[in-house]
Amino acid sequence: MMNADTRYKRFQTTLRVRPDDIDMFNHVHNSRYFDYVLAARYEQMETAYQMSMEEFMNQGYGWVVRTAHVDYKRPLTMGEEFTVETGLEDFHDRGCRVSFQIQSNKTGKLCCDGWFDYILIDIKTGRSARITEEMRAKYTV
Amino acid sequence: MMNADTRYKRFQTTLRVRPDDIDMFNHVHNSRYFDYVLAARYEQMETAYQMSMEEFMNQGYGWVVRTAHVDYKRPLTMGEEFTVETGLEDFHDRGCRVSFQIQSNKTGKLCCDGWFDYILIDIKTGRSARITEEMRAKYTV
Amino acid sequence: MMNADTRYKRFQTTLRVRPDDIDMFNHVHNSRYFDYVLAARYEQMETAYQMSMEEFMNQGYGWVVRTAHVDYKRPLTMGEEFTVETGLEDFHDRGCRVSFQIQSNKTGKLCCDGWFDYILIDIKTGRSARITEEMRAKYTV
Amino acid sequence: MMNADTRYKRFQTTLRVRPDDIDMFNHVHNSRYFDYVLAARYEQMETAYQMSMEEFMNQGYGWVVRTAHVDYKRPLTMGEEFTVETGLEDFHDRGCRVSFQIQSNKTGKLCCDGWFDYILIDIKTGRSARITEEMRAKYTV
Repeated sequence: MMNADTRYKRFQTTLRVRPDDIDMFNHVHNSRYFDYVLAARYEQMETAYQMSMEEFMNQGYGWVVRTAHVDYKRPLTMGEEFTVETGLEDFHDRGCRVSFQIQSNKTGKLCCDGWFDYILIDIKTGRSARITEEMRAKYTV
Repeated sequence: MMNADTRYKRFQTTLRVRPDDIDMFNHVHNSRYFDYVLAARYEQMETAYQMSMEEFMNQGYGWVVRTAHVDYKRPLTMGEEFTVETGLEDFHDRGCRVSFQIQSNKTGKLCCDGWFDYILIDIKTGRSARITEEMRAKYTV
Repeated sequence: MMNADTRYKRFQTTLRVRPDDIDMFNHVHNSRYFDYVLAARYEQMETAYQMSMEEFMNQGYGWVVRTAHVDYKRPLTMGEEFTVETGLEDFHDRGCRVSFQIQSNKTGKLCCDGWFDYILIDIKTGRSARITEEMRAKYTV
Repeated sequence: MMNADTRYKRFQTTLRVRPDDIDMFNHVHNSRYFDYVLAARYEQMETAYQMSMEEFMNQGYGWVVRTAHVDYKRPLTMGEEFTVETGLEDFHDRGCRVSFQIQSNKTGKLCCDGWFDYILIDIKTGRSARITEEMRAKYTV
């Protein structure tokens, strides 16, 4: 899924494990990788795609996760720095699939990868909305 | 602070430790007790005081924490059931102090206690607001 | 996946949304459903299967999540009570698939469903371990 | 408490708000500032004091929070970068007081300040331990 000939550009964000992310096995709790991807994605929406979540919200739109799929390989540990790489896999009328991989900066090894299916919604009605030309132009880089 | 002759009634809520609350020492992470008190308080606002946070928000008000003070005695551990007792210590023009104690149901021992100072705010302006007669009547039981 | 003729018994745990679970859209943050399933599962390991995580750990074993898959339908909101139903889908030499569904107690509607693949590990080596006869007997109810 | 003539050096760590830190008011949830201070402190123990939490643990010691006190001034919001400044206020036989302040990098304004009282413990017994000369030398800079 992460092969080099993917159509869309991929972006990277560096983050660091916080103490409250750690679970009883001294590993990052499985649910936290999920927020790491969201954190990276929010940053990349602003800096890489030039259309931030705030701008979507100002235009009356939001993105909601429809499906999440995560494959865990090796756990991150306390204080570790890591890189979240994300990119579009697929872009359709009302949503998109974002794939990701999280890599430890210390070991260079893959910690987990997977994908999220997002749906664009109209904030007022809460229903799915059609992706505009502006959005398509900015996101299909 | 928790003596029997306190002027205001005290209320109890039972909760249970969730896996993500646990830290690298196999104890509940210090920050989580904070959310336990908020969770108990939200429930008690609705069931014990008959004026829920939702009702405050519908009237254009919110409560924000100004100061938090927590004394830790003994940590809670994975899966433990515990009781959060809270009550008003002081009620003034624009806010109140809520004291709390958290007790393990397994051991009966005190895990932590402390207090939160809350300020009533006008949601539109974000500034402090005067507590109304209705609020005072409902909360000074 | 949740059909009635599934081979293994399913179990239910009731939980309640805590304030810190809520995100900027006034919904439960997507990652929290993950911890809800783990919390339900820990409780059910102890009460429904009679072999708690603690007992696994005392015997030198742990369970780690290998893959997580969540389909989101409708978000839970502040203070809502909900039911997490889980059950085994598949049980093999070194792991199992647990499927789940989370339902709002207020509306009776499905909030999300999905599955987790777990691997049994030997805590000392961190490598996958063979499921013992005792485990199989207790879990294949 | 944060005056310039304090005896001990103060250190700064830059962090960024993650999506799951945000609460229903679109602000960072009150309990998260607590973890921000711990995250900063862990980093500073390693880089500024040259004696990391890991090294304490390897020597059989841990630090536990005895009391936490936080004064909230202005909330942080989604994606904001901020600086956590911490320093020792007081260093005694078996513990220390660490004061902190958190400042928004965007506005330069103070978000919250306060202090944590820590106790050194012997991990095996769980009881308080005497601070060694090595620790004192490294931490009283």
